[in-house]
Amino acid sequence: MFITLEGIEGSGKTTQMRTIARWLTTAGRDFLTTREPGGTPIGTQIRSVLLNPENRDLAPMAELLLYVADRVQHLETAVRPALAAGKVVVCDRYFDATLVYQGYARGLDRDTIHELHRLACGGLTPDLTLLLDLEPGAGLARAWRRIHADTAHAQESRFEKEQLDFHQRVRAGYLDLAGLQPQRFVIIDAALDETAVGVQIEAALAAHVTGRQ
Amino acid sequence: MFITLEGIEGSGKTTQMRTIARWLTTAGRDFLTTREPGGTPIGTQIRSVLLNPENRDLAPMAELLLYVADRVQHLETAVRPALAAGKVVVCDRYFDATLVYQGYARGLDRDTIHELHRLACGGLTPDLTLLLDLEPGAGLARAWRRIHADTAHAQESRFEKEQLDFHQRVRAGYLDLAGLQPQRFVIIDAALDETAVGVQIEAALAAHVTGRQ
Repeated sequence: MFITLEGIEGSGKTTQMRTIARWLTTAGRDFLTTREPGGTPIGTQIRSVLLNPENRDLAPMAELLLYVADRVQHLETAVRPALAAGKVVVCDRYFDATLVYQGYARGLDRDTIHELHRLACGGLTPDLTLLLDLEPGAGLARAWRRIHADTAHAQESRFEKEQLDFHQRVRAGYLDLAGLQPQRFVIIDAALDETAVGVQIEAALAAHVTGRQ
Repeated sequence: MFITLEGIEGSGKTTQMRTIARWLTTAGRDFLTTREPGGTPIGTQIRSVLLNPENRDLAPMAELLLYVADRVQHLETAVRPALAAGKVVVCDRYFDATLVYQGYARGLDRDTIHELHRLACGGLTPDLTLLLDLEPGAGLARAWRRIHADTAHAQESRFEKEQLDFHQRVRAGYLDLAGLQPQRFVIIDAALDETAVGVQIEAALAAHVTGRQ
């Protein structure tokens, strides 16, 4: 079973990944938590190119290709082997993020993104996608507090520098995708406090994971 | 005018790039010499991922996508602007290298490589490709001497670690492409000494560049 976690910056994905890990542990499921970009040693190197705030002139198509390169490496060396071993794989961001950030928000043609993905990745669709939905102003305020409170996040990433309307297009893109594939997406209200968000996530996991191999 | 220089490791591309620059200067042509991967600041970061000898488990498709990402960035920010400004652009490696290394040598489907290139790069074909042809044993011996003589090259790259048969497939691939497009390729005998190789290159430039804008 392949679960993905999606949402804008500051929507609480990192925190809720811990909720999911706790739930799967309690449920006695063998699992792998991972992320894109950067879920492999080579992906970490690619991620540093993608997030480097100095790389302001990265061409949108080059950015897209770097994400897909990271994904191919991640699928081949981490995700597919774990799925083949019967594990639940939970991934912080996946193809929906590419469609939303590079397509809806950056303006690359979405058919081109789909076609590139098909050529490069074969096509592996999540069984369940948890969308942490949040108004971008609130998400960015959270991301900013984290940057200023935590020296490990002291440098603002290239995405946190984007304008608010960029993040609004990201949010709208996610909601559009969720509307197109309601059987796969569960929309979580991420404006609530951490515990209340966790309760929604646990309910979604109980409904979709319990009983499934 | 867009000129590319191709050939296996140790075939003398770096040295002969200087011959080309000298010839273009004498001919009074405005030009840009550049290379792939790594012809842009972002490309340099991508190049370091590609050549890092620790990245032994880089998936062939991920490697291909990194090359294409570097190329998109290079075309958009360096090559196309220089061509638009009327310069002659001379590039150390381009799409033929991708077809040969990732297709002929690494075994990725060549139609997939063409299709990916079309989606990502639009398609810009060189006007002239100088192929420095050399028997791989001789090329690798040269590359090894360079590694051991020069501390700047002290670390063997991921490609220099490949087996001889890999480099033989690269050479055969280049010769196959040259046979398919004889109007674009000029095959240079790179087994001769530096001066004799330079004379062949100057003759090719005189035939293809003189009189052209």
